[in-house]
Amino acid sequence: MIYAVIMAGGSGTRFWPESRKRRPKQLLCIAGEKSMIRTTVERILPAIPFERIMVVTGEEHADEIRCQIPELGEGMIIAEPAGRNTAPCIALAAYKLSKIDPEGIMVVLPADHLIKQERAFIENVKTGAEVAADGNYLITFGIVPDRPETGYGYIKLGVPVVKTGSSTVFKVDKFVEKPDRATAEHYVASKSYLWNSGMFVWKVSAIIRAFEAHLPRLSESMENILQALNTSREAEAIDEAYATMEAISIDYAVMEKADNALTLPIDVGWNDVGSWASLSDVWGCDHHGNATRGLVVIVDGKDCIVRSSEKITAIIGVEDLIVVDTPDALLVCHRERTQDVRKLQEVLKNLGYENLL
Amino acid sequence: MIYAVIMAGGSGTRFWPESRKRRPKQLLCIAGEKSMIRTTVERILPAIPFERIMVVTGEEHADEIRCQIPELGEGMIIAEPAGRNTAPCIALAAYKLSKIDPEGIMVVLPADHLIKQERAFIENVKTGAEVAADGNYLITFGIVPDRPETGYGYIKLGVPVVKTGSSTVFKVDKFVEKPDRATAEHYVASKSYLWNSGMFVWKVSAIIRAFEAHLPRLSESMENILQALNTSREAEAIDEAYATMEAISIDYAVMEKADNALTLPIDVGWNDVGSWASLSDVWGCDHHGNATRGLVVIVDGKDCIVRSSEKITAIIGVEDLIVVDTPDALLVCHRERTQDVRKLQEVLKNLGYENLL
Repeated sequence: MIYAVIMAGGSGTRFWPESRKRRPKQLLCIAGEKSMIRTTVERILPAIPFERIMVVTGEEHADEIRCQIPELGEGMIIAEPAGRNTAPCIALAAYKLSKIDPEGIMVVLPADHLIKQERAFIENVKTGAEVAADGNYLITFGIVPDRPETGYGYIKLGVPVVKTGSSTVFKVDKFVEKPDRATAEHYVASKSYLWNSGMFVWKVSAIIRAFEAHLPRLSESMENILQALNTSREAEAIDEAYATMEAISIDYAVMEKADNALTLPIDVGWNDVGSWASLSDVWGCDHHGNATRGLVVIVDGKDCIVRSSEKITAIIGVEDLIVVDTPDALLVCHRERTQDVRKLQEVLKNLGYENLL
Repeated sequence: MIYAVIMAGGSGTRFWPESRKRRPKQLLCIAGEKSMIRTTVERILPAIPFERIMVVTGEEHADEIRCQIPELGEGMIIAEPAGRNTAPCIALAAYKLSKIDPEGIMVVLPADHLIKQERAFIENVKTGAEVAADGNYLITFGIVPDRPETGYGYIKLGVPVVKTGSSTVFKVDKFVEKPDRATAEHYVASKSYLWNSGMFVWKVSAIIRAFEAHLPRLSESMENILQALNTSREAEAIDEAYATMEAISIDYAVMEKADNALTLPIDVGWNDVGSWASLSDVWGCDHHGNATRGLVVIVDGKDCIVRSSEKITAIIGVEDLIVVDTPDALLVCHRERTQDVRKLQEVLKNLGYENLL
């Protein structure tokens, strides 16, 4: 059987002021009518029914997710007492699934990405799941790049390993860090590199074997949790384990070390919605490059991203600006400076405005 | 006796969204704790008491002005049924004063300018009033320019006519239109030009004689109004006269044609507060050139003017921007494009948002 594991642990700093600690990006309707996590769940439904969809999130967001996705099965929202990056999150889901279906397949998906070609995505998920079912592979979905993006990590393709239908699954030659512009241009031109999307598919048994091999301490913590799973001690056991658990990413901890890492190239209109600037692609632009939501009037504006919540926003004679208006905070930020939204939050914290974070 | 006539007919388009049709700039606290018109009235008090201060305004703003300045005497707020520029406004006040004190002196002041050196201003008003009392002069206060401003009209100095104390009053050689940059630089360097401030002092009889000579039709209309003044027919007579009255400025209609126009150079920290951009001077700047009001946090901003009304406004990595947040409208405008705030209002009108104007 195929299961979806949706990682919904994001902390919501990059979409301030729309996102806050209590309302991180995945819970918001930033891209469309529905929240990003609801969209993520509905997108996978043609391949995986509600009862086999699991969400891992911070405990402060579990209730809201239960509200947004009431169709999720009993026990399928796992609350982490603290964010520890992707490896513990995935491990928790994997060990939990190992009790239900140790030879099951798990598709791991971030809750806050967008995919435009949903049907093609589903086909690729099915392909990936088939390949995963046939062996002890750790498969990462690699995005065929359409521009020399410097904000993503890349995957270098190795030799082809499996052909199935029109798809080929490759060995991962190596994972590489976010490149500079020239390197990124080289990557794209070479056609040998994919964007590292953070979406995976593997057998539950395969990823558990990988945790045992590459993260034995994490694996041990999870075994302890496993003893308490589905008992009254479950939450306590998770709390205990997380108290001393190292925060580490699945890429760094497992994928980069594994010799059974494969990648399936996919071209599905993927967008990680990484910052306000990414929304020009998501929302679509007018012929001056302006992307807007809400009541916005622009006189001579160019390449602006404007979200107006409850009032009219008027823009005159500006370029490359992000304007986000919410009832209690307004952000005006240069488009190239979205990384400093975090810096701003530090400033706000130091000024005593924690209620606005 | 000296009277002040405060012109408060501004329509409030340039300070949108803070100013609206119902709340034009002169009624707002844009520059300080008090409204601009209240500030204008209090500034002149050392020279002219409340009972000799007259305000001419649009009838839709008369009640608000009565509220803001309850000390004004009975009948000293004159409501124009429609804005007809400065000549009719001044004529109405002059003819009304001619009934009370035909040989009185009237000091004409816009309601929405700022003056930093109030004591020096009062001294100059007194000087101007003395000179006006001694002859049939039309005296305009000319501002000693401190920069080659292209947004103002200029007055070219003629021969000195009267010396009194440390002041000299000059004949006006000519009024000149807003210059281009090079011309403005030449004007400032020559020391023979002043800014045309739109503030005047003259005898009531002198300006009435000028209206009779240069605007006979306006003068006739005013004579008709005069018959009805202080009777139950007053409002009706004003309505009738204004229905067909030409809109024309005192500069164009009278000052440029008069051969008895004098100018008194003054250097009093004058600011016409002509647009949002002017507020960097009024509010004062931080060492990055940012001028702010309300709760504003700036990370790497330069030369911005930000007014936040009810929430926090955060600025990241931008220059030369005007940001004005109000409860029902937000403006983000390049500092060099404040003239397009009017254009924006046309757009809003065409889109059906007249309620926001």
